[in-house]
Amino acid sequence: MAEKKLGVWLIGACGNVATTATVGLVALQKKLAPKVGLVTELVEFAPLELVTWDELVVGGHDIRTPDLLATARRLAAERVVPAELVEACAGELAEISTRIAPGIAYHSGSAIRNLADVPPVNDAEVAPSELIRRLQRDLRNFVEAHQLRGVVVVNVASTEPTFASALPATWNELAPLLDEPGFAIPSSTLYAIAALELEMPFVNFTPSPGATFLALEDLAKQKKICHAGQDGKTGETLMKTVLAPMFAHRNLDVMSWVGHNIFGNLDGRILDNPDNRAAKVATKDRVVSGTLGYDPQTLVSIEYIESLGDWKTAWDHIHFRGFLGTFMTLQFTWQGCDSALAAPLVLDLVRLVDAGARGGETGAMAALASFFKSPLGTTEHDFAKQYAALLAWVAERSRAAS
Amino acid sequence: MAEKKLGVWLIGACGNVATTATVGLVALQKKLAPKVGLVTELVEFAPLELVTWDELVVGGHDIRTPDLLATARRLAAERVVPAELVEACAGELAEISTRIAPGIAYHSGSAIRNLADVPPVNDAEVAPSELIRRLQRDLRNFVEAHQLRGVVVVNVASTEPTFASALPATWNELAPLLDEPGFAIPSSTLYAIAALELEMPFVNFTPSPGATFLALEDLAKQKKICHAGQDGKTGETLMKTVLAPMFAHRNLDVMSWVGHNIFGNLDGRILDNPDNRAAKVATKDRVVSGTLGYDPQTLVSIEYIESLGDWKTAWDHIHFRGFLGTFMTLQFTWQGCDSALAAPLVLDLVRLVDAGARGGETGAMAALASFFKSPLGTTEHDFAKQYAALLAWVAERSRAAS
Amino acid sequence: MAEKKLGVWLIGACGNVATTATVGLVALQKKLAPKVGLVTELVEFAPLELVTWDELVVGGHDIRTPDLLATARRLAAERVVPAELVEACAGELAEISTRIAPGIAYHSGSAIRNLADVPPVNDAEVAPSELIRRLQRDLRNFVEAHQLRGVVVVNVASTEPTFASALPATWNELAPLLDEPGFAIPSSTLYAIAALELEMPFVNFTPSPGATFLALEDLAKQKKICHAGQDGKTGETLMKTVLAPMFAHRNLDVMSWVGHNIFGNLDGRILDNPDNRAAKVATKDRVVSGTLGYDPQTLVSIEYIESLGDWKTAWDHIHFRGFLGTFMTLQFTWQGCDSALAAPLVLDLVRLVDAGARGGETGAMAALASFFKSPLGTTEHDFAKQYAALLAWVAERSRAAS
Amino acid sequence: MAEKKLGVWLIGACGNVATTATVGLVALQKKLAPKVGLVTELVEFAPLELVTWDELVVGGHDIRTPDLLATARRLAAERVVPAELVEACAGELAEISTRIAPGIAYHSGSAIRNLADVPPVNDAEVAPSELIRRLQRDLRNFVEAHQLRGVVVVNVASTEPTFASALPATWNELAPLLDEPGFAIPSSTLYAIAALELEMPFVNFTPSPGATFLALEDLAKQKKICHAGQDGKTGETLMKTVLAPMFAHRNLDVMSWVGHNIFGNLDGRILDNPDNRAAKVATKDRVVSGTLGYDPQTLVSIEYIESLGDWKTAWDHIHFRGFLGTFMTLQFTWQGCDSALAAPLVLDLVRLVDAGARGGETGAMAALASFFKSPLGTTEHDFAKQYAALLAWVAERSRAAS
Repeated sequence: MAEKKLGVWLIGACGNVATTATVGLVALQKKLAPKVGLVTELVEFAPLELVTWDELVVGGHDIRTPDLLATARRLAAERVVPAELVEACAGELAEISTRIAPGIAYHSGSAIRNLADVPPVNDAEVAPSELIRRLQRDLRNFVEAHQLRGVVVVNVASTEPTFASALPATWNELAPLLDEPGFAIPSSTLYAIAALELEMPFVNFTPSPGATFLALEDLAKQKKICHAGQDGKTGETLMKTVLAPMFAHRNLDVMSWVGHNIFGNLDGRILDNPDNRAAKVATKDRVVSGTLGYDPQTLVSIEYIESLGDWKTAWDHIHFRGFLGTFMTLQFTWQGCDSALAAPLVLDLVRLVDAGARGGETGAMAALASFFKSPLGTTEHDFAKQYAALLAWVAERSRAAS
Repeated sequence: MAEKKLGVWLIGACGNVATTATVGLVALQKKLAPKVGLVTELVEFAPLELVTWDELVVGGHDIRTPDLLATARRLAAERVVPAELVEACAGELAEISTRIAPGIAYHSGSAIRNLADVPPVNDAEVAPSELIRRLQRDLRNFVEAHQLRGVVVVNVASTEPTFASALPATWNELAPLLDEPGFAIPSSTLYAIAALELEMPFVNFTPSPGATFLALEDLAKQKKICHAGQDGKTGETLMKTVLAPMFAHRNLDVMSWVGHNIFGNLDGRILDNPDNRAAKVATKDRVVSGTLGYDPQTLVSIEYIESLGDWKTAWDHIHFRGFLGTFMTLQFTWQGCDSALAAPLVLDLVRLVDAGARGGETGAMAALASFFKSPLGTTEHDFAKQYAALLAWVAERSRAAS
Repeated sequence: MAEKKLGVWLIGACGNVATTATVGLVALQKKLAPKVGLVTELVEFAPLELVTWDELVVGGHDIRTPDLLATARRLAAERVVPAELVEACAGELAEISTRIAPGIAYHSGSAIRNLADVPPVNDAEVAPSELIRRLQRDLRNFVEAHQLRGVVVVNVASTEPTFASALPATWNELAPLLDEPGFAIPSSTLYAIAALELEMPFVNFTPSPGATFLALEDLAKQKKICHAGQDGKTGETLMKTVLAPMFAHRNLDVMSWVGHNIFGNLDGRILDNPDNRAAKVATKDRVVSGTLGYDPQTLVSIEYIESLGDWKTAWDHIHFRGFLGTFMTLQFTWQGCDSALAAPLVLDLVRLVDAGARGGETGAMAALASFFKSPLGTTEHDFAKQYAALLAWVAERSRAAS
Repeated sequence: MAEKKLGVWLIGACGNVATTATVGLVALQKKLAPKVGLVTELVEFAPLELVTWDELVVGGHDIRTPDLLATARRLAAERVVPAELVEACAGELAEISTRIAPGIAYHSGSAIRNLADVPPVNDAEVAPSELIRRLQRDLRNFVEAHQLRGVVVVNVASTEPTFASALPATWNELAPLLDEPGFAIPSSTLYAIAALELEMPFVNFTPSPGATFLALEDLAKQKKICHAGQDGKTGETLMKTVLAPMFAHRNLDVMSWVGHNIFGNLDGRILDNPDNRAAKVATKDRVVSGTLGYDPQTLVSIEYIESLGDWKTAWDHIHFRGFLGTFMTLQFTWQGCDSALAAPLVLDLVRLVDAGARGGETGAMAALASFFKSPLGTTEHDFAKQYAALLAWVAERSRAAS
């Protein structure tokens, strides 16, 4: 296994998260970056014998014309990544840009379509299966070109608008519908199908549907491959899943939890569209009641403030009642760099689903819940319990491997 | 066991925490208070068959002239407890005031001595053992007067100045020294000895030494009785032990953690004295490095701001470094009512050490770590792990009991 | 003049602001309240010889069944006013309740109509002039019953939905239209007309239109009476008009200014309706660019969070650029009690428009700009300049009077 | 006058503020920097015909070995100044470094002495007048070397420890004492004397004494030259002088005002020494009561937190009482870059004292109060009033000039 490499295929490969992850991976390969922010570099993960950074090769899809170096330089100007590091990795970034194939924007709504540099497709005339075949051709070419032992596909593209329709519950029912031109199904789900059919693990780091449907879980089980999602838990929501259990364990009654998020990157611009925002707000909002076990009044806003760039500032106001009815307040302000928080988790997830796949995991990997706002395969939102479950999985997998 | 009552003996029985706990207990007995804020009322604790609120009888020591009703009315004016509730419990509060005996202020420093209404004792002339005998006489009278099946002694008195001297490591070595007039030993430790010698569980809710010395642990083991401490974890420090693990589990590098605490109650006034403050700051400060496993720059301040009364406001600023060296910041402001946070934990601890004592626990109860800033019997500071350990103890104790 | 009293007629007399102002006035008359929060009690205002608190008599209109005592007790429970004070004023509050006549809800939108206890009127069938006559009858009865030397009418009713239509620019053009049944004109404007026609000064403490129309200014000039408005400046917006000039005077470039407001009183519930909120957000938002002289990106949200009651919490995030392009941030959290901030300003305004009226002021009083979010008669938003203008007016009026 | 240049002589020329000011000035001369942050670039100052940026030449004293380029690069790494800008000005910075002469550290305390690269002087053996002559020789050489029409001397060196002794009130009394070896007088005052004796305007941007003594004011009057100070008002204190008047003008009763400042630059390291900190805290603390007209409880802390570098974060908590005694709270967090805030004010002050000197101002310039925490020549702390006074001075001076 050591002589063959593993592909990392990023959906939305030109975005801030993908670019930061790519810069970071190249920097790790060149020994230019410390391992801060990488969960899998904690000593607890050593027994897993995860794929090394050197063994990873990046490619991807994007609907925009790829120029990772230009994007990385913009991120450096916004203080997301160090300028020196970008320049030190300039050659690699230029090369990786050549491995980014045109993505799809099927039923993606106007906010995303407006970003696209790829020629527009008439959604009503194209069959989803045709798009899937195109995506799979790109993935197969990638494997062949780099003689890869496998590929992990990670969705880090912009959030799609809420998808309201239902899909059939089994893969056998869904598969034939994909031949119908104009059949309503999100792009993120087509990417997931493309990956899972090829027995490649799929990670959905976004609030888009991806592999969340029962039919996709069914497909994964049939193909004996694993996947993980949904929506990376990087900042304000991470805080919620850490703090809400504290209130629960102290029997303090949370009356209201307000969270306002402001930021100015492309993700923010897409989420400024109410359709796309609805999906995100839903996953952010669910965790409080999911952890407390009851429904306080909650409010989540996400607003595009251009001057902030990739720096997301969240203000949360938690109003709670203690002994003898005393009202108290906790407020926090989180000032995080979105991409710098997300990128290492993307790299961690590549390693962990690869370990899962090698270990024979099939379907949604509940053990990875701590990475996600809406974890698949479990209803556990308490971060400490999610992390304990992850360590338990590491222990079990290490035992199995030895 | 059901027909006999359990005594709750509060050291510092006239203070804000003790008064709030007493008002709350009377309110619980009269079915006037909801169970919010009481950990032991969570469903997870049901199997323990804890002592009921009705079975508890309050008494205590204090160096000030007791008038619980007046204190409770002041707390009501400061919005710590509801005024109606205080009036509804006025009769009981007046009665409990009669059960408060004069406390001791031996080697307690000027800040505490200045509070005392009891006649001053010349520390150089009195032997600690004499004071212990006086305290034990009060405890025995309490048992007799109310036909109690036992007493839990809880220290909620003002923080003593840092105690620099060492004590011998065994009870057999320490005991004879107590007969020497002027022997340097903190009052909180004398209270602890008084309790443990009588086989009464002792809880140290304060940063004062109490039963933290090896010789006291030895005494507890000899007497086959349990104790718990040290320094109730109610607000800012609770937050620290919840948030620090988040940074650790995400491999985010905490560079500095600053915590400023302002409040205006008596506790604050005592802590405004540098000697007394040093003890408190030490327990508050230790938890960050204790949880992270390394030593970021930390700063803890506690300042007396009179207008805030019992309302403690803490501002914490956490500066951390993420992937590729990006600097980020988390700030929180905690606006809590100190006594309303502490009082229910005092009641919880009474129930839990009673359960421990009935179950044959001896020495420091590490299972109660989640209640304390400096837990005895364990070095675990991570709140989630502490709470998991508590639930594990509950499960084990329930099994043992059934 | 000294022997006759002055009426204070509150539109929305049962609301939180009106009730707090009424409790406060009665308390001032009974010498039970300090003068904190009252601008006109500052020494600078002494030369004006303002109407004394003893000379004021309260009445009003409301669309709800009046019970000031019940409202005041609810406010006491929410910690807006002291409970003892409410009880000490109970008799007066009950009596004032009898002086509150049924108000009108003409073209007021569903959010306000749903509050009304008065029988609903079919907007299409009633002529505005008929309603005005009814309101004026109530005002005349008030004068007669209490032998008043005059009445100041103050609108503190809920915010009306945005009024989109234009009204003619002169009173002579507008007056005949008021006889048309169903003519579209806001209730707040009918109250203003009722007052101004009777030569009573009118104060608009709300974002509703009231006397902001040119035709109303014309009416005031014709009747030689003064008025003031619009929208009392109590908390977050006050902060904006204090802080924005600081940035301007330091030549710091404000890139974005975000303000999130959360609260849970009736005002908040009404503003939760998007139509009503639009009016409020507009006046809150205007001040930043109005003071800076350019248009940074701004965002204002107002959200109803029930648990907060009358306690408005605002979080503002100001992102600015300094020398050599350095990005910096100012954040503030304002935790104010809305009614306790507004009520004294209402009482101040009664005194000041009365002084204006006695001094012969006609039309909008620009000198009162410091009290309002959208001051009439001036475009000055800088609080320090507004306050300097007020003191200049005080000096001028004092000179004229002596 | 146009053909001759004006010297800017910076005491502490190698520090962060001086370096940022120098980089900024060079950038302005090269048209590489916008005019954001420069007060004198506001349109209101146009009539003054201030010295242009091109006419300024920088030199200075420092007790450390000068290397402005290295310092500027470090500041770029800390995001205080843009890296590209530093490189674009590299040649000029290297040249200016050659114009920095060794400074003095007479009676400066250990914190400052420990910084010094210049050979230590035995304070007891050297006469202050000897040091003054040395400083004046450097100043005269600077004038000659660059054919300057004058020099403005600006103290931006580290804060000296509190100077407890009194000095005589007149220059004639003080002058002879300067010949006594070891005579106790701060270094900052020696720099001030050196400048004023040479009829050069002196600006004291620090909390060190400088020209605050009566004898220095006397010297300035005798020499018919102006000076300004003390302690530049850049961040938290600026906020105080803007917000305190708001509370005063609304008659809101400030009960307590707490301000905690954390930062990690050299200034912070020096201020970590209690002696040096005392001076700074005093000037920061005075403004609240100075503006309110009464003495609420105040607390100011300044703490060195290394990871923050030049980024000063201040948290202020203002507890105030409104109408009917309601307690309310305002909190703010200021996250500013100290040097980026201070540097443009240094440049502004050079221009303004030069205009003052040309206009015949003598002694302390009260018109410049808005720039300082402890303005000389006035007790006015209200920023809006200070700024209005500045504009009035601009108008008067413009009239005088035309």
